[in-house]
Parts: sequence; C-alpha cells; structure tokens
Amino acid sequence: MSGTLYGVGVGPGDPELMTVKAWRLISTAKVIAYLAAHGSDSTARAIAKPFLPDDAREIAIDMPMRTEREPAQAAYDAGAVEIASHLAKGDDVVMLCEGDPFFYGSFMYVFERLSAQFSCVVVPGVVSPVACAAELGQPLCKRDDVLKVLPATLDAGRLRDELMTCQAAAIIKVGRHFGKVKQVLSALDLITRATAVTKATQAEQSIQPVEDIADDALPYFTTIIVRT
Amino acid sequence: MSGTLYGVGVGPGDPELMTVKAWRLISTAKVIAYLAAHGSDSTARAIAKPFLPDDAREIAIDMPMRTEREPAQAAYDAGAVEIASHLAKGDDVVMLCEGDPFFYGSFMYVFERLSAQFSCVVVPGVVSPVACAAELGQPLCKRDDVLKVLPATLDAGRLRDELMTCQAAAIIKVGRHFGKVKQVLSALDLITRATAVTKATQAEQSIQPVEDIADDALPYFTTIIVRT
Repeated sequence: MSGTLYGVGVGPGDPELMTVKAWRLISTAKVIAYLAAHGSDSTARAIAKPFLPDDAREIAIDMPMRTEREPAQAAYDAGAVEIASHLAKGDDVVMLCEGDPFFYGSFMYVFERLSAQFSCVVVPGVVSPVACAAELGQPLCKRDDVLKVLPATLDAGRLRDELMTCQAAAIIKVGRHFGKVKQVLSALDLITRATAVTKATQAEQSIQPVEDIADDALPYFTTIIVRT
Repeated sequence: MSGTLYGVGVGPGDPELMTVKAWRLISTAKVIAYLAAHGSDSTARAIAKPFLPDDAREIAIDMPMRTEREPAQAAYDAGAVEIASHLAKGDDVVMLCEGDPFFYGSFMYVFERLSAQFSCVVVPGVVSPVACAAELGQPLCKRDDVLKVLPATLDAGRLRDELMTCQAAAIIKVGRHFGKVKQVLSALDLITRATAVTKATQAEQSIQPVEDIADDALPYFTTIIVRT
C-alpha cells in the first residue's frame, strides 16, 4: 500500500496563518519535502519551522535560480523520484507550499509528475491577495465586484485593459516589472489607489503607497493591491 | 481601554481549514458574533462549532432574507450597536466569517460601522476558489496566468468578454444565474472545461461537470471553476 502525497499550503508567512489541517499534517509528518532556491533557505520551510517534528526526514528540492526551464525541470524530476521512493515504501510525504499549492504554486510541477501513480491530497491555504487586504485593513472585494489576479509580466496594454474592467486587482510577482506597472497605474489615474505589500504577514513585511515609491524594481514577492 | 473587533475567516467549510490563528481566537473568545439568515442557522457558526467555548456570549445578527437593502442595513446597524457595547466595556469580540472576511464577505458592513472607533484586526481565511481547486485535484493557476473572480450576476456579454481574456476563472454566487452562465460557457466552447462545486469542503459538497447539469439554477453557494 503506497503512501499519500500531501500538498500543504502553509499560507502567506505568519505560521499561525496555516490551517489547522496543515498544522496537523506537518506536526505529525515522517517525510517533509520543499523547494529550496539554490543557495538560500526555503520560505515554506521557514514558515512551517515552529511545527516541524525533530525527527522528520527532509527532502530539499534544490532549485537552480536561472531563467532557462531545463535545469528546473531536471530538479523537479529528481525531487519527484525521491518523493516517489518514500511513497512506494508506504510512507506519506508532506510537501510544504507557500500560500496555496494550486495558486501559482510550484507544487503543480511535482503533482503532475506523481498524481497518476500515487494518491495526492491538496490542503488549500491562505493566498497573498487576502493576506494583503487583511494587513491593509481594507476590504478587497464586495457584492458584484470583479477581482483579477494579474501577473506583472503582462504587457502594459494588457494590464491597462484588465485594470479598466475590474473593481479590484492583485498584481502579483511585481519584482523588476514595477516601473511598467507604475506607469500603467499613473495613466489610469489609479496610482493613489494602489498599495504595494512585500512579504505580507512575514517579519520583514513592508507596506508602501505605490505613489511614494521611487524605485523601478521591488522584491519579487510583492503584491500590489488596487481598488479602482 | 476598549476591546478589539476580530474579523475571523473560518474558511470554506471543513472546520480543519480554518487557520491556527482563527482557532486560537475562537476557542478563547468571550464574545462571538455572526450573521444568521432569518430562520436558519449561521454557516460560519456551524463551521466554528467544534471550537466554540461553552460559555461564550453569542451575538446573532439576524439578517432578513430580502432583496431590499434597507432591512439589511438596519440589521447591520443593530448588530454593530450590540458589538460596540461589548468593545466599549473592554471585551474583545470575534466575528465569524465564512471564507475570508474581506473577500466578498459581509464582515465589511460591520467593519465600516466600527473601524473608525475601535481597533479592528482581520484574520484572513481560505477562500472558495482555492478550496474548490483542491477538491477537484486540479491546479487553479500557474506561471503568468490571469485569474478572474466573476460574480454570476454580470450580464452575458461582460461574462463572455472576461472569460475570453483569462486562463482561469472562478464564477461565484451562481444560484439562479446558472442558465445564463451555462449559455456563455457553451458559446465560448468552454463548457467541457467547467466544473460546478457547491458547498466546497462541507459535508453536503457536490461536484458536477457543468455540461452534465440540466437545471437552470443551482444553490447560491456554488462556484464554477473554469480553465480556458
């Protein structure tokens, strides 16, 4: 009897914002897996750290920080093989995922490699747009509002069109695209309605009105919340 | 010293899908508030029930089920007065909110009445689109996808335009608008890519491919997940 792969959302950063189910699965896990960006710690592991059992076996999937896709695919392949070896022995594996596993998460690359062969259960988590709204003390969407989640990688024209037809937006993965996003928000006269939140609910959280930011780049894990 | 109003997301339905922070605040609360639709129980209270202290004082905000706005506004007014009386005495009040308080939640009507006068803290929760994706075992969005949350109340033309320009959508509050939504999905040739989830993660959860549903209406708390 094979084990089950659990993709577990650990939420946006504050360890208390993981679900009771995530806490239960993590605190009783025998095998824990997570992505580790090459040369740095895993954010998902850092969030789960207060609840990690001392004696859990850990699988760190070492992810090269390069733009080419092949090295990342090779890392997922190798990680999936290691996870599969535990599942095949009958052990469950808990994979830690920032936010929610199926919301712009890397878990899906492991899931697509293993879900045909093994039982997989996804435990949803708190996603960054609602964590940002809570930290801002500002409702995100109500009644018949349209909410859009827009990657900052979209071109300026597309960003403009999408922002013109919604009541609320979360622009994610801002990073080096901030200059473009800021120009689009200015052109739409929305810049005073936009706030940048970096590492929401984490110790290093920063909150800034977009109009006050002079830089052309922000950290990758920045979300801009706009109410139009 | 006044108390703090906590707007606490209890998640989509499974009590284990509330956060550890929600569980801590609820299980130690002296005063609990929630909306109760006239003549029926509160879903948020039902989700939190396993964790409610026996001796908590409960404030049920009795919400008339009518389409006019005035009776609802009067109910929020009365509820806010009762909550304020506890806050003014220095007691914290925990308001239970299905899903997330600031994601299409009724908490904002209480928040807008009390946040100028009292300290308010929002505890974000797991929202229905990611809960549905987890139950479907199907990633919701990845990489540079655009995700839209679209109320089913939008007119057919607007729904069509929004669906044509995204990779993933969660159509919420489906209810009596199902016939229209189904027509739009058919016209876009997306009907085989759409699944209706009612009461995700609750005991009465139902999951159905949209193309298999003959009815013209579904329960209000139905979300349709579409990958385009």
